[in-house]
Amino acid sequence: MIDQLRRYVPVLDWGRTYSRTAFSNDMIAALIVTIMLIPQSLAYALLAGLPPEAGIYASIVPIVLYAIFGTSRALAVGPVAVVSLLTASAIGQVAEAGTAGYAVAALTLAFLSGGFLVLLGVLRLGFLANFLSHPVIAGFITASGILIATSQLKHILGVSASGHTLPEMLHSIYTHLGEINVITLVIGVLATAFLFWVRKGLKPLLKRMGASPLLADVLTKAGPVAAVVATTLSVWLLGLDASGVRVVGEVPQGLPPLTLPSLSPDLVGALLMPAILISVIGFVESVSVAQTLAAKKRQRIDPDQELIGLGAANLGAAFTGGYPVTGGFSRSVVNYDAGADTPAAGAYTAVGLSIAAVGLTPLVYFLPNATLAATIIVAVLSLVDFSILKKTWNYSKKDFAAVAVTILLTLGLGVEVGVATGVLLSILLHLYKTSRPHVAEVGLVPGTQHFRNIHRHQVEANPHLLTLRVDESLYFANARFLEDYIQKRVTSGCDIRNVVLMFSAINDVDYSALESLEAINSRLKDMQIGLHLSEVKGPVMDRLKKSHLLEQLNGRVFLSQFDAWQAFAGKS
Amino acid sequence: MIDQLRRYVPVLDWGRTYSRTAFSNDMIAALIVTIMLIPQSLAYALLAGLPPEAGIYASIVPIVLYAIFGTSRALAVGPVAVVSLLTASAIGQVAEAGTAGYAVAALTLAFLSGGFLVLLGVLRLGFLANFLSHPVIAGFITASGILIATSQLKHILGVSASGHTLPEMLHSIYTHLGEINVITLVIGVLATAFLFWVRKGLKPLLKRMGASPLLADVLTKAGPVAAVVATTLSVWLLGLDASGVRVVGEVPQGLPPLTLPSLSPDLVGALLMPAILISVIGFVESVSVAQTLAAKKRQRIDPDQELIGLGAANLGAAFTGGYPVTGGFSRSVVNYDAGADTPAAGAYTAVGLSIAAVGLTPLVYFLPNATLAATIIVAVLSLVDFSILKKTWNYSKKDFAAVAVTILLTLGLGVEVGVATGVLLSILLHLYKTSRPHVAEVGLVPGTQHFRNIHRHQVEANPHLLTLRVDESLYFANARFLEDYIQKRVTSGCDIRNVVLMFSAINDVDYSALESLEAINSRLKDMQIGLHLSEVKGPVMDRLKKSHLLEQLNGRVFLSQFDAWQAFAGKS
Repeated sequence: MIDQLRRYVPVLDWGRTYSRTAFSNDMIAALIVTIMLIPQSLAYALLAGLPPEAGIYASIVPIVLYAIFGTSRALAVGPVAVVSLLTASAIGQVAEAGTAGYAVAALTLAFLSGGFLVLLGVLRLGFLANFLSHPVIAGFITASGILIATSQLKHILGVSASGHTLPEMLHSIYTHLGEINVITLVIGVLATAFLFWVRKGLKPLLKRMGASPLLADVLTKAGPVAAVVATTLSVWLLGLDASGVRVVGEVPQGLPPLTLPSLSPDLVGALLMPAILISVIGFVESVSVAQTLAAKKRQRIDPDQELIGLGAANLGAAFTGGYPVTGGFSRSVVNYDAGADTPAAGAYTAVGLSIAAVGLTPLVYFLPNATLAATIIVAVLSLVDFSILKKTWNYSKKDFAAVAVTILLTLGLGVEVGVATGVLLSILLHLYKTSRPHVAEVGLVPGTQHFRNIHRHQVEANPHLLTLRVDESLYFANARFLEDYIQKRVTSGCDIRNVVLMFSAINDVDYSALESLEAINSRLKDMQIGLHLSEVKGPVMDRLKKSHLLEQLNGRVFLSQFDAWQAFAGKS
Repeated sequence: MIDQLRRYVPVLDWGRTYSRTAFSNDMIAALIVTIMLIPQSLAYALLAGLPPEAGIYASIVPIVLYAIFGTSRALAVGPVAVVSLLTASAIGQVAEAGTAGYAVAALTLAFLSGGFLVLLGVLRLGFLANFLSHPVIAGFITASGILIATSQLKHILGVSASGHTLPEMLHSIYTHLGEINVITLVIGVLATAFLFWVRKGLKPLLKRMGASPLLADVLTKAGPVAAVVATTLSVWLLGLDASGVRVVGEVPQGLPPLTLPSLSPDLVGALLMPAILISVIGFVESVSVAQTLAAKKRQRIDPDQELIGLGAANLGAAFTGGYPVTGGFSRSVVNYDAGADTPAAGAYTAVGLSIAAVGLTPLVYFLPNATLAATIIVAVLSLVDFSILKKTWNYSKKDFAAVAVTILLTLGLGVEVGVATGVLLSILLHLYKTSRPHVAEVGLVPGTQHFRNIHRHQVEANPHLLTLRVDESLYFANARFLEDYIQKRVTSGCDIRNVVLMFSAINDVDYSALESLEAINSRLKDMQIGLHLSEVKGPVMDRLKKSHLLEQLNGRVFLSQFDAWQAFAGKS
């Protein structure tokens, strides 16, 4: 009972042994992450089309809930770029940005996504996320990075533009080019250039100047805060908002409010598929990050419990004015590098953000949207990595096709179509491959008891004995293929007296394939050719014993292929 | 060039050697099939909701086109029960039965279906049909038989009822029970009872009375014709149509007219999915029949050319007042048993039906619909076979689930939902299984070079050497599973120094799995455990050589598992 509870509420486990060292490590990490999160939360809310406070709210309660239910010690949960983009794309279809309906739709999306994650976790269905293959994710993230950066161009230019696909966005920006606000553009370009320099050039510079690595690190992390402070001050002091520079404006002061998602059937119906997509993508991203960081400290994370942790975080976001959240890559790495020992670091980050929500929001009134856009652009361009195209091209055209289609469709038709088609295509290509299995005719490697393909190795063979190694599980998609293959092979001239099917690579025989094997057996029997099986594995044998195939078999079952060889090869 | 032509137009092949014996054999078969087809064509048109002549037209030109382009020597193409049901279900959604739009929709359906089949044939995509597994087809045919029989009850009862699912039909019949026409009911019940008796009792009786097997066979086949003649005469002589017995009525006299399918985007959009479904189900049915009959005479049929033959037949139906056709099971078996030698038998059948279309249609004016319904019911109840449920239950719960869902959903929600869900479920269950592969720890079978599961066989093992045989191709769905499995296994206590992955059952390693293998390799390296591969097959090795895995491998690649054993097992 207690063990059961501890499995579902890991805080009961690590909380009992929480030490003073862990506390101070966690506090330092929380401080660094908080500084990084304040501008990021505002920026991602902007990306999602939500008021800035939604980003801060989404970083408070969710982070605490994840600390209670999650298993990763370093994962930092909150708004992230890709999920914010997915949110904007999903909600944009049901409500107008800036309206009350839009904010409610965001809560509903978080609620559905949280509910779905908890459901998967309780049913232990985390493995479903594996159907999102690595190449599809890599392609999707790269395309999302481009989409996100493009979506922020309008803030840099100071124009209003719209669209959820690359052509739509570029076209919309093009038609609004006349409205460019020059002051906004200057702020935006300077902020972007500064942030790129902080990322690429500052750290080496500081090191050359003799700063300690820790100091260099903290200063680098504080870059966005510096940009925020500098541009906010400029707008305020020079009154630039009167010249058309759009600013964040009034942000309500106070702790996250209690909110209720709408459960109207229309809204739920429209948001269900996007919510599932957001859950799966968020989960996959989060688990990869968590596993990578856990492996470094030889810790293990439990994917099914992660579903519950992320689900709880999203449910929390739904009831406290937030929007869908997940474990972010960059903030988790920062958290880890800053020495976070336990999930408590997340709770302290939440305290930091609460203080910001209560005390600091008036200070961002004059913060230009262009600065936030600059932080987003600099952050997401690091996600863009086309090398996956080259890697998969060299390794497997099937994987390349999945990546290329995912990237093209995500850019051209939007995130949902892109990732759904990528997943579908990778499944179809896999099924296609298994539907036309490789079949090798094998012979004995001299001096051993090992059998290999007669066309690749110097092996001994016997003209009256045909030994086929089918390199695929037999199931409905390839059952008829095998029938045809054997029929063609045994009617092709030579005097074959026995056929041995070497089952070493056959991991399953489903009912369709069983019927095919029965058909093959009876046809070979009519032709007075024996049919034998060798190296049938335990689980497959268990199943075949439930059928009549073995009784009716016009031949024998051999433990090893060598036994079969000894039985027939001598007779010729 | 000529060979190419002969491949696509098989008649050029068998036509050159057409003999007098073949001619007389084909003529006899055609005569028997024609007698059987006349009532059947009328009945299936009724089932499809079309005027009776549509059934006859669909049996003339399509049969000739199949004779030219098809490869089976015995297949008889024309309207069949299941496809007629699918037609009724598809067209019922876009037009009212009996209207001109309904007939045009039937032509369009045949056109789309024919075009799709030809396309698949030219692209050589016949293998796609394999994704319809044997159990799903068996379940679908059984459920369709029940649906068809139920749909004909209204004609036996003489009431008007509607619906495309079992609950709808039963409910509709129930609400119309008050309108039962007693004379129709008497005709219907008598005709049904008579036809059942002909099927089950007549042949044994004739044999006991000393009739020759051929005579007994012909008389049995003529049963439906006898029922048609007897009931038609009764209605005519007793004027029963005036008492509310519905009859076939006026059927236009003459050869099939030239017709044009409609290509309005709305109609095409609505009928495209049903057309694909009809094509695939028709093709699968047809190919199974053709293969079974061809195997008996050691002939081969070419599935891709079959697609072209069936496609041409459907295109023919679209332009000559017909509706979707396919190779029928019972008529093909009759054709084969009656001695048909070549596809020319089909052409002669077409001549027989043309004569019927020109000369006999006035004779069916007084033919009661109830008699046609009786012939349908008796014919389709032989399709109903629940034994597939028991067989799959015993053999594999996965296949059982696919059959059960297909039957239930076909009955409860209609043919399209039923078969689509069945196909999808069987694919998902297959993917699910491959996502959690069986992994066996293997050891040496004493006195051999053969390795088997240490839990199933008496084998030699070495505590410092962990040899895992992964019984599945490695791909995105199970890549993470393997990572977790190995991590758990090597951290579970014992002092493992080397891990050998035996690749005998691994038929593919995709890019996701490659990344997992790289991760496993680097984690084991960190733990100072060697990672080795054995029995990697040719095609898998070719692929791995394109990656960096083999260079970075913290261990060796062995040709056989026995080599790996010799290298490590002595060292302990």
